[in-house]
Amino acid sequence: MGYAEQLGVSEDTLENFERRTHDGREYRPLPNARNGIERGTVLIDGTVVRGYPSVPRTLVLDAGIREHFDGEFVVEEKLNGYNTRIARVDDTLAFTRSGYVCPFTTHVVESSLPLDSFFEDHPDYMLCGETIGPENPYTTHEYPDVDSVDFRIFDVRDRVTADPLPVSRRRQLCARYDLPQVASFGRFEPDEAGEVRAIIARLDERAREGVVMKSPDGTEQLKYSTSAANRDALAYAFALPFDYGRDFVLSRLLREAFQSVERGESEAEVTERAHDLGESILLPMVAAIREVQAGETVGEEHTVRGEPDAIEHALAYLREQGLAIEVKRDCTEGDDRVVTFVKQSSKTTQKVQYYLEGGTVDE
Amino acid sequence: MGYAEQLGVSEDTLENFERRTHDGREYRPLPNARNGIERGTVLIDGTVVRGYPSVPRTLVLDAGIREHFDGEFVVEEKLNGYNTRIARVDDTLAFTRSGYVCPFTTHVVESSLPLDSFFEDHPDYMLCGETIGPENPYTTHEYPDVDSVDFRIFDVRDRVTADPLPVSRRRQLCARYDLPQVASFGRFEPDEAGEVRAIIARLDERAREGVVMKSPDGTEQLKYSTSAANRDALAYAFALPFDYGRDFVLSRLLREAFQSVERGESEAEVTERAHDLGESILLPMVAAIREVQAGETVGEEHTVRGEPDAIEHALAYLREQGLAIEVKRDCTEGDDRVVTFVKQSSKTTQKVQYYLEGGTVDE
Repeated sequence: MGYAEQLGVSEDTLENFERRTHDGREYRPLPNARNGIERGTVLIDGTVVRGYPSVPRTLVLDAGIREHFDGEFVVEEKLNGYNTRIARVDDTLAFTRSGYVCPFTTHVVESSLPLDSFFEDHPDYMLCGETIGPENPYTTHEYPDVDSVDFRIFDVRDRVTADPLPVSRRRQLCARYDLPQVASFGRFEPDEAGEVRAIIARLDERAREGVVMKSPDGTEQLKYSTSAANRDALAYAFALPFDYGRDFVLSRLLREAFQSVERGESEAEVTERAHDLGESILLPMVAAIREVQAGETVGEEHTVRGEPDAIEHALAYLREQGLAIEVKRDCTEGDDRVVTFVKQSSKTTQKVQYYLEGGTVDE
Repeated sequence: MGYAEQLGVSEDTLENFERRTHDGREYRPLPNARNGIERGTVLIDGTVVRGYPSVPRTLVLDAGIREHFDGEFVVEEKLNGYNTRIARVDDTLAFTRSGYVCPFTTHVVESSLPLDSFFEDHPDYMLCGETIGPENPYTTHEYPDVDSVDFRIFDVRDRVTADPLPVSRRRQLCARYDLPQVASFGRFEPDEAGEVRAIIARLDERAREGVVMKSPDGTEQLKYSTSAANRDALAYAFALPFDYGRDFVLSRLLREAFQSVERGESEAEVTERAHDLGESILLPMVAAIREVQAGETVGEEHTVRGEPDAIEHALAYLREQGLAIEVKRDCTEGDDRVVTFVKQSSKTTQKVQYYLEGGTVDE
């Protein structure tokens, strides 16, 4: 069956797919949603690997849950890392959200997860999860139990149709094959939003990201973030204020305001939230301006660790993506090569320089 | 001389001008800059009234002043109201920044300023200034010495060429004709940015807007705002978070960060600034969500005061501009009609309602 037939679209839709290579193999990712096909869908060696669907977010737990779920729903933890799909097409491949084969993530999942028995039994499934931990090329969020880099499964889907397994079946399957998965907080009814708010409050205290709520059959999803996650995202964005979209910033501010209203916060509580918010915005921005003033190039710092060849491959891949990579530290620890690098942001660096030199703006 | 010739452009450029009427007279405003003609330029009864030029802003006083001025410059106060040009084309007319004849402002300047002797002597000049005070249809900033609405001149220009008078000549002229003008803080050299920073600090303590710096011949301008003004603008924007552009928000945040760095603030000072900033963002947004939750329509409240006919005309004009005006209070005080109204924001009201009802967003 051809790609178009597998996807249920006309042949000319296929023209929207890019052409890339990984280890000499051609594959074709779709970096933006088109004609009803999810962003990140990939065509490779005759098979389709569907993109992970966008998960709707509610700004108000109570109303959002009632609006979204007719009956029981499951609450699982949403982690702060990057969305990864693992499929086996001859080799094991790890795809990013946009559909690129990431050599680093591929190396990590191959060397750390017991994938063989799973894919022997279920060759047409894809494992969908979050790659987390302090040592990866994309995110830096720390988890107490993750030293370097790790993977947590939050979904198992048919790779061609993207149909999900029911939640309980997926959790049993992962347990059986010894595959690590996200925490589950149990099942709730739509009138139990208060329970979910309590889960969010506990996650917030531990500076964790939030939750994804799912219908038991896995088809309906709804997400919600902690205040800690909103502030983290703002601090991240304002560390490179000219790189992140204005929408990114405003959406996080709105989440905070709706959360405060839903929790019925007192004046003192709103004020305390406002102070935390202000710090997340101003402090990283001031730090970035001072760095540029001191003659440095600002950017995001990441560390990667692994077999020397895999690390070399990962850095080459990032450079191929058009990123300006400055290696700050490159050393060997046991059999591993450990590289700390900065993804230089010329945009923020140059804009900040422009203003520091007295450049003006019409506004 | 035709309009095109007065403007030095080709005839077909004139097609970009809108057609409007005021008191039965047709006039043609240009609401957006085109072909090098300033936004707000107006064609009326054979004459051109040029738009007020955009004034560049610096985010860093010291570098901005050195970059912008070769020698001495004058520092005048920048007020928080709305830009108004007054010209006499048969009648006295007050134009908004975008080039619309505002009946309310026309009424205010005609009834409060001694314009006759000025325009008899200088029929081709336009008076450029800020309309300020708590009672006007556009802004609500309070000044201790302004009870209702008032006007302060910051520029006098040839209405066709927009050539400005030198600053000292303009100030003498305003004094001679008893026309109110913005405060002047004196003349400085480019290496005296420290003096300007001190002026800004004093204005900030009094919660005032900022300064405009000008070359003595009036042709070069550079503006800079106080932190109080930045916070005011954020509070204003976040009271209607879905109405104000994302650019508006981000630009104010950047101004705060650069100001903090230029002032070399300590960690405690940056933190205090961050707390104030957070309050300007979150508190009005939470208040707006609560208002919508209580079933109200949010919007900007304004009060206008004046002769009953003029007030009627002013409200009709705002409705013609497409604004949804809800009158909250309408009464007579002496000979004046005083109307308090809300410019209803259906955008913020509807979006907030959507999220309160559990509406989701893909982000």
